[in-house]
Amino acid sequence: MPVPVLDHGVVPPLCTPLTPERELDVPSLERLTGFLLDAGVHGLFVTGSTGEVAYLPDDLRHRALDVVVRCAAGQVPVLAGIVDTTTPRVLAHAHAAETHGAQALVATAPFYAPTAPSEFPTHFRAIRAAVDLPLIAYDIPGSVHAKLPAEVLAGLAQDGTLDGLKDSSGDLDGLRTVLESVGTPHFRVFTGSETMADIAMFLGAHGLVPGLGNVDPHGYVRLYEAARRGDWKAAATEQRRLRELWRMITVGGGRIGPYASAIGAFKYALVARGVLAHGTTSLPMAPLHGTEQAAVRELLAAAGLSQT
Amino acid sequence: MPVPVLDHGVVPPLCTPLTPERELDVPSLERLTGFLLDAGVHGLFVTGSTGEVAYLPDDLRHRALDVVVRCAAGQVPVLAGIVDTTTPRVLAHAHAAETHGAQALVATAPFYAPTAPSEFPTHFRAIRAAVDLPLIAYDIPGSVHAKLPAEVLAGLAQDGTLDGLKDSSGDLDGLRTVLESVGTPHFRVFTGSETMADIAMFLGAHGLVPGLGNVDPHGYVRLYEAARRGDWKAAATEQRRLRELWRMITVGGGRIGPYASAIGAFKYALVARGVLAHGTTSLPMAPLHGTEQAAVRELLAAAGLSQT
Amino acid sequence: MPVPVLDHGVVPPLCTPLTPERELDVPSLERLTGFLLDAGVHGLFVTGSTGEVAYLPDDLRHRALDVVVRCAAGQVPVLAGIVDTTTPRVLAHAHAAETHGAQALVATAPFYAPTAPSEFPTHFRAIRAAVDLPLIAYDIPGSVHAKLPAEVLAGLAQDGTLDGLKDSSGDLDGLRTVLESVGTPHFRVFTGSETMADIAMFLGAHGLVPGLGNVDPHGYVRLYEAARRGDWKAAATEQRRLRELWRMITVGGGRIGPYASAIGAFKYALVARGVLAHGTTSLPMAPLHGTEQAAVRELLAAAGLSQT
Amino acid sequence: MPVPVLDHGVVPPLCTPLTPERELDVPSLERLTGFLLDAGVHGLFVTGSTGEVAYLPDDLRHRALDVVVRCAAGQVPVLAGIVDTTTPRVLAHAHAAETHGAQALVATAPFYAPTAPSEFPTHFRAIRAAVDLPLIAYDIPGSVHAKLPAEVLAGLAQDGTLDGLKDSSGDLDGLRTVLESVGTPHFRVFTGSETMADIAMFLGAHGLVPGLGNVDPHGYVRLYEAARRGDWKAAATEQRRLRELWRMITVGGGRIGPYASAIGAFKYALVARGVLAHGTTSLPMAPLHGTEQAAVRELLAAAGLSQT
Repeated sequence: MPVPVLDHGVVPPLCTPLTPERELDVPSLERLTGFLLDAGVHGLFVTGSTGEVAYLPDDLRHRALDVVVRCAAGQVPVLAGIVDTTTPRVLAHAHAAETHGAQALVATAPFYAPTAPSEFPTHFRAIRAAVDLPLIAYDIPGSVHAKLPAEVLAGLAQDGTLDGLKDSSGDLDGLRTVLESVGTPHFRVFTGSETMADIAMFLGAHGLVPGLGNVDPHGYVRLYEAARRGDWKAAATEQRRLRELWRMITVGGGRIGPYASAIGAFKYALVARGVLAHGTTSLPMAPLHGTEQAAVRELLAAAGLSQT
Repeated sequence: MPVPVLDHGVVPPLCTPLTPERELDVPSLERLTGFLLDAGVHGLFVTGSTGEVAYLPDDLRHRALDVVVRCAAGQVPVLAGIVDTTTPRVLAHAHAAETHGAQALVATAPFYAPTAPSEFPTHFRAIRAAVDLPLIAYDIPGSVHAKLPAEVLAGLAQDGTLDGLKDSSGDLDGLRTVLESVGTPHFRVFTGSETMADIAMFLGAHGLVPGLGNVDPHGYVRLYEAARRGDWKAAATEQRRLRELWRMITVGGGRIGPYASAIGAFKYALVARGVLAHGTTSLPMAPLHGTEQAAVRELLAAAGLSQT
Repeated sequence: MPVPVLDHGVVPPLCTPLTPERELDVPSLERLTGFLLDAGVHGLFVTGSTGEVAYLPDDLRHRALDVVVRCAAGQVPVLAGIVDTTTPRVLAHAHAAETHGAQALVATAPFYAPTAPSEFPTHFRAIRAAVDLPLIAYDIPGSVHAKLPAEVLAGLAQDGTLDGLKDSSGDLDGLRTVLESVGTPHFRVFTGSETMADIAMFLGAHGLVPGLGNVDPHGYVRLYEAARRGDWKAAATEQRRLRELWRMITVGGGRIGPYASAIGAFKYALVARGVLAHGTTSLPMAPLHGTEQAAVRELLAAAGLSQT
Repeated sequence: MPVPVLDHGVVPPLCTPLTPERELDVPSLERLTGFLLDAGVHGLFVTGSTGEVAYLPDDLRHRALDVVVRCAAGQVPVLAGIVDTTTPRVLAHAHAAETHGAQALVATAPFYAPTAPSEFPTHFRAIRAAVDLPLIAYDIPGSVHAKLPAEVLAGLAQDGTLDGLKDSSGDLDGLRTVLESVGTPHFRVFTGSETMADIAMFLGAHGLVPGLGNVDPHGYVRLYEAARRGDWKAAATEQRRLRELWRMITVGGGRIGPYASAIGAFKYALVARGVLAHGTTSLPMAPLHGTEQAAVRELLAAAGLSQT
């Protein structure tokens, strides 16, 4: 029986565990995958921004995907981020992701190279034409420095290029416009927001791709299920607890970069929870200090999460 | 006798000629290299932003470098852009560039991944430690969305990590601060500005890396030589002519993206001048229309440049 | 019996009607005030951004406030925008607004003069100390180019400087943080969003300040009342209709400035609805063309609003 | 004999001295005016950004202008900044400035109100039509958050609306484009840059409006005169000394706002030089601390400037 294309649900963007030598930590990645599946997630997103995709050499991307595809074993779909600067380089990742078992692809607009919105359709169409897998547009202006316009998304949904959107823009008004304007039944919208996930669901989003879902997948599954049954009060209560937990991303303060702080906190929290063996992050990110690690543990405790 | 490390002069960032099928057009790249050497340039910069580095798959980057290294044959140094998102991915390009004969490396700060200036030294030091070639920092905030601070550059010059700067920031005040503050004799500063090259030289820059230098290398060599002998009036006169020629980058108007317009104009101008066989650009860039091509030809004529 | 300080509800930022000679159109302003009161609004906000405050000479600001205070006749509170570049100039407006009968003041952070968030408390405290009226902070980064941080707002709420916030930032995540962190019972939060008003209410906002509420106050009162009774589905349905109506702000396309288009559309819609005599806007805004006016009328019709 | 319209030279934007009670300090302003005239400046610019125009109530603006016009006594022209949000408010300042003796007006594009470049001509034409004084456009994107396009300036120069430009954009390439494209002999271009004044002159600017010229007018007059006689080496040497002195603007570090630091440093330096009685700045700017004042004194000493 074929694995169904991702329809809705919680799809965490997996952290990519590294050994102290910054090689892929396969046992930790196996444990993380199992931890997420046990929590009831509906899909797995490999090599997303939370997975340090921008830091991973090609072979490390491929091996991470191999591990997760093997562990998922068809229980839930596995999506792969094919993040690179422009179309020709993204195409190489698309072919590789297909080869390594991805069931859907997630691609941003071009970056580094100055690109106008009028060039976005050519980009996404070339990807869709090259590899016959569902394609999800990844709107992440904080990294790409451009926003995917709702009318571009609508056009690419209607001509069958795009199967969905992962919205990490933080622009809920724009998300609502996409939901109102796409008008094709197959198009799926996922929010990348950890902190406004209940609102995205209220607006009609089909699912969540929360980086913090590595740390507390059970919480996001509860939030999602409350939202699905229309219990907005319960969803908001869960969201409020997760908003407090989210504060871990700032433990590094101004001492280290903001992304180093966020990814370092997620990975250390997974160490504290007994899932990862190491909190190692990619270069040039600096590691968390002891007091910063203690702050992560305090937030985990305040959120009622078990630690080893 | 070993090829000297690049000291000063005009170092065009070579366009990467493509066939209509978007494969590397080797004969055109050979002609372009010869055209530039004949004009008296002092170095060759392969896989820079003008070379569509962000669009080139790895193997195409390598083959372009092979061709130029072979054609240069030790007459002038060949620099390679090792442009990618973060340290681990840049390291892979650094090793490959060394293997393929580059004599110096040019690297930007990390991009896509949000990175603080405090993380830049780790990035550049890791590259310098991995590959024993001169390293030039590439400051291009329009693509990277961060500026290399003068104090970071000064520190990395003083500890021997950096041998120079390619400044494509457009910030001449900042360039002056770098020139005033670096204080190590070996550090070399090159401007990426096509339109303020005379001013950069007046401020003390050692050389030029002008994308428009593909089209009119003789002009930039004249400008450079006038500046070297302190004839600022002659340099400014040459600069003014080149500023008019520079207007070719806008021939695409708002019809196509601004970078598609600029690269398309450079490549078409090289077709018009008999150097390239095709004006093909990478996806998702759209080609120039006939009227836009005619506008390029008019600007070439106005600048007194020969055409076929 | 004293007029109560504004507690919650719909508080439209009134358009400032002008004659063709760009003098205050008093009869039109009287009609507009009556139109809003008849619709059941809970307060009136004079000289806000929608009221062209940045375009109005001082005396015109004062006369507009006089008219609305007189027409309101104590039925609902009248708030006055005291918008100017920095503290000393804002203080002059604060005194004048008190003299002309305002019952609460609405002030932005400083603008034009580069000002750090650490300087915002001094600004708001000086205003509150000078004039004994409730003070509402106006967060409008699109005009001020700075965001009021949640922690600054929380501090100024707790020390009694601020009585509330008008949030025109579009940042619903930040709005939620303010609502979670302020922690003083008297602090009131109003959203300036026309298009996400239901969500702001769901997050705990106390009221709405919608510019589009000039055109369809009945709609915003219905949305508000649905939200107050927790009927989020009804609120969202009303919101969806108002989102369609909101599209009038773009009728000017790129022909005229975006603000000229928006204010021109509001004023022309009020002409079409028989409330204003003229659609005149302040210099340098250009007027709507006939086809643009027709587009406004079509949107009014589609929204089920009566026209003359 | 009539005072000539400003043609070229050094035109400092005068600080506005305040008493500890933040009233106009008339004797200090008289001394400052005399200090500048003695140094040989060619014009005086009152109520510019350095003059805290955005902080001054109307009456204080008028009295400052009165004092400077009286002290200048026709020896050099007096320009007045008429800085406010939009056309109608700027017009009020224009009329007042004429009444109080200004011989030319300096106006920015609209701010706070979102305004498109296509609306700028209407703005400047309305000012020019209302008051028959030379009008200079003030390009200061750091405060206005929009850049005056070269083609707009060229159009307004050619139709006689504008007599000149004060360029505080920091964009020397853009400045060069203006100088190349305006093409009317009467149009005068002044740079607001303290740190690239020699370059602006090299590019063809007619004069300087340096805020730091309050502190060291003799230095800027020397720089200007060297530039006028084409001695670019001498101009650059003077510029380098002034660049060191310019570092005073950062003495407040992150403790206070950047503008508070800059204006506080200028005013304290003038106290140290015996020109002003007080270093008081407007609200909400915080004053310099003792160690910050000492740093200003050290920079004055290093620049070879006399102190009391």
